[in-house]
Amino acid sequence: MRKEVIAIDGGKICSLPRAQQRIGEHLQRMPAEDADLDAALGRVAFADITAEKPVPAFAESTRDGYVLPPCDPGNGARGFRIVDEIAAGRVQPVERLAPGTACRIMTGGVVPAGSERVVPHEQCVEQDGRVTVPEHLLQARASYIRQAGSEIARGERLVGEGVRLQGEHLELLSSCGMHAVTVAARPAVGYFCTGSELKTIAAGLENGQKVSSNSFLMAGILPSYGVSLKDFGIAGDTFEEISAVFARAGEWHGDVMVSTGGMGPGKYDLVEKAFLAAGGVVFFTGLAMRPGRSILFGKLGRTLFFGLPGPPYAVRTLLHALVGPALLAMQGVKQTGPKKMEAYLLHPLEVKHHEVLQLKDGVLVLSGGRCGVRLAGRLESPNCHILLHPGCSWYGEGELIEVHLVGDPLIS
Amino acid sequence: MRKEVIAIDGGKICSLPRAQQRIGEHLQRMPAEDADLDAALGRVAFADITAEKPVPAFAESTRDGYVLPPCDPGNGARGFRIVDEIAAGRVQPVERLAPGTACRIMTGGVVPAGSERVVPHEQCVEQDGRVTVPEHLLQARASYIRQAGSEIARGERLVGEGVRLQGEHLELLSSCGMHAVTVAARPAVGYFCTGSELKTIAAGLENGQKVSSNSFLMAGILPSYGVSLKDFGIAGDTFEEISAVFARAGEWHGDVMVSTGGMGPGKYDLVEKAFLAAGGVVFFTGLAMRPGRSILFGKLGRTLFFGLPGPPYAVRTLLHALVGPALLAMQGVKQTGPKKMEAYLLHPLEVKHHEVLQLKDGVLVLSGGRCGVRLAGRLESPNCHILLHPGCSWYGEGELIEVHLVGDPLIS
Repeated sequence: MRKEVIAIDGGKICSLPRAQQRIGEHLQRMPAEDADLDAALGRVAFADITAEKPVPAFAESTRDGYVLPPCDPGNGARGFRIVDEIAAGRVQPVERLAPGTACRIMTGGVVPAGSERVVPHEQCVEQDGRVTVPEHLLQARASYIRQAGSEIARGERLVGEGVRLQGEHLELLSSCGMHAVTVAARPAVGYFCTGSELKTIAAGLENGQKVSSNSFLMAGILPSYGVSLKDFGIAGDTFEEISAVFARAGEWHGDVMVSTGGMGPGKYDLVEKAFLAAGGVVFFTGLAMRPGRSILFGKLGRTLFFGLPGPPYAVRTLLHALVGPALLAMQGVKQTGPKKMEAYLLHPLEVKHHEVLQLKDGVLVLSGGRCGVRLAGRLESPNCHILLHPGCSWYGEGELIEVHLVGDPLIS
Repeated sequence: MRKEVIAIDGGKICSLPRAQQRIGEHLQRMPAEDADLDAALGRVAFADITAEKPVPAFAESTRDGYVLPPCDPGNGARGFRIVDEIAAGRVQPVERLAPGTACRIMTGGVVPAGSERVVPHEQCVEQDGRVTVPEHLLQARASYIRQAGSEIARGERLVGEGVRLQGEHLELLSSCGMHAVTVAARPAVGYFCTGSELKTIAAGLENGQKVSSNSFLMAGILPSYGVSLKDFGIAGDTFEEISAVFARAGEWHGDVMVSTGGMGPGKYDLVEKAFLAAGGVVFFTGLAMRPGRSILFGKLGRTLFFGLPGPPYAVRTLLHALVGPALLAMQGVKQTGPKKMEAYLLHPLEVKHHEVLQLKDGVLVLSGGRCGVRLAGRLESPNCHILLHPGCSWYGEGELIEVHLVGDPLIS
C-alpha cells in the first residue's frame, strides 16, 4: 500500500485516460510512403485520396442493345440501318451516327459521341441488317447510357485521410485510374520477452522452464494494428541480458519497442533499471488499473517503449487498451482510442478488488437491437473489455455498463 | 418479367435462404493438416484441442520471497536458515526442505516438493543468512504457490472444433506444451474476371477499356475468409477465352472457383455456356434478390463454382453473403451463415424495386446499449447488409430491421 502512495506522489502512476493522453502526446505521425494498389490492403491513407480519372471514363452502354442517333419521336415503330457493332473493350472509335443508322452495342461498349440513347435488344426486332425500335422506347426516360463521370467526377474525394484501406477501397481506386496510393509507413515494432525460465518451443523444456508464450500474443495481436514486426527474442532476468536487448534496439531505430515481464518490484525485475541505464526516459511506471499496476511507458532515443507485465492476460489486455490504439494513431487512423460504448450486462456481477479500475474480458452479444455484454469464459476469445470502475462492488443484470471494443473494429 | 417466371419454373432461381441451403449441401469439409503454432494464426481448429501438459507444469511461486517447509504455527516470529536460492528458470532441483530451513525463491521459481508456502520477501527480515517470518504469515490462507495443473489440467479442452485461432489461443496452446495444431486445410480458391474491356493496371488503358477492378475485391475480401488464393487473370468475352480458364481450372483441382461478369442474358454473357461445355453442373442461376439476379452456382469436377455478376457492388455483396460463409463452413467454422441480427433504423427508408429482397450496404452504430443501423454512404465502407424484404416500400426511423454482419465478426 505504502509503495503505491509513494509512487503516486512521485507522479509515475496514471489513470487510464491520463495514460492514453500522455501516450498521445509522445506519438509521432508516421511519414508518408507510396504503396502499389496490390500491396495497399490494410494500409492507412496518409491524406485524402481523390480521383485521378472520372468513372466511367467514357460514356458507356448499360445494356446489350442498339445505340441510336438523336431522332424526333413521332410516328410508331422506326427502322434503323445497322452500320457497326460496339463490343465492350472495342478501342477503335465509332463515328457519330448518321440519322437513320444504329450500331449494335454491348454492355460496357463506348457510346459514339452525340448518341442519345441505347435501346435494349430484347425489345427490338433485328432483320436483314436493320433494327425496328418501338416508338415508346424512343420516348422512354431511361437512356441506358452511363455518362462519363456520372458515377465519380475527376478530383472527387474517394477515401478520407486516416482510413484503413479495404478491398472495396482498392477496387474503387483502381477503377479511378490509380496505380499507387500514399499511405502512412508501417510502424516498425520490436518485442522481447523477459524471464530466465522462458525458452522457445523449439528449444524444449526442462523442469522449471516455460515456453515464451507471450511471444504468440505479440505475433498474433500486433500485426492486426498494421505494423511490421521484429522479434528480439528472450532475455533472461539479468541486467546484462536485458541491457543487451536495449542496445540492439538502440541500433535498430524502430518506432516502438514492447517487452513483457520483469516489471515488478522484485530483485529480478530489471527492465526499468536496464531501460534507465540505456538512456531511456520514463513517462509513467504504472496505471491505477488492473491489469497495469506495473507498466512502463517511456522513450529510448526515438523509440517509444512499453514495458508490459508478464501474465499473458495482462499482456493481451494492455496491448489492446494502450499499445494498439497508439500504433493506429501513429498511422493517422482517426479513431485513436479503443471504441467506447455502453452495453447491457447480461448477468449480475460481483466485483472483488474494487479499489481500482478493472478491465475484464467481455463478449459483446448483439440481438434484437440491443447490445448485451457478458464476461468472457475462461478460455473464450473476448471481443471487448468491460470497465469496472473503482468503488462499485456490484452490478445488476440489465445494467448499462461501459465497454471498449478491442482491435480496430469497423463498427462505429 | 416472362423470363424470370420461366426460370423459376425451371427451378434455377432461388431465394437467399434456399441458396444458402443448397450451397451447404454441396460443401465438402476441408481435410485436416498440421500447422506449427507460429503459422496457425487465423487457421480453424479441425477438432477440439486438449492440453498435452498441465499449466503450470510444476508448482511455482507467485511471489519473490522465501519458500518454507511445513511448520507448526505457534509462538510469534520464526527464524529459518537460508540454504539456497531458486530463481525462475533454475532447472537444478532443490531437495525437500529440512525443518528450520528456507530457500529464497523468485516468482516463477520451482517450489521444492513438500513445501507448504511462500512468504513475500517484503514482509520478512533477512539477516546473516537467516530469515525471520512473522507468525501471522505462517497461518495465512494465501500460500503464494500455484500448484501444477491448477490453471489447466492435462487433457482439458482448450479450443473447440471450428474456432479460428487468435493470438490468445496460440499463447494458451504454447503454454500447454503444444508445438503444432491440427487445422482445416485452407480452401484453394481461384478467381478470374471476364470482360473484353478489362486490362490490368500495368497494361495501361485505351479509350473503351477499364481496369479489372473486381480483382481488387477478390484479393481484398477472400483472404479474410482464410483461403489460399490463385488469380486466373482476365478472360475476354469469348467462348474460347472463358473455356480456356475453365480448362486450366479443371487441371488445377482447386476447391472453389469464382468469376465476375459475363452472367447476364446477353450475346457476350458466355460464362454459363462455357461452364456447361466444360462439363459443369449447374445448381442455380439466379437469386430472387438484388443484387444476385444473375449468379451461377455449380460444380466442375470437384471444384465448386460461383459465377458472380460484374458490377463491383454486386460482387462485394455476394462475396460476403454467399461465398465467404461457404468458405468458412468448408473449414468447419461453426457459424456457417452471416451473423444475423436486428438493429434500429437510424433514418426512414423509402424502397424502390420492392418486388424482391434487397441487400443494402449498412453501417452498424453501437451506442448507449442500442444497435442502430444506417445506409452506408456512397463511398463508405459498410460493415453489414440491411435486408429489405419484398413488398415493403417504406421503413420508419427507429424500426427494428434485419441486418447481416459481413465478414467473420467476433461478435456473437
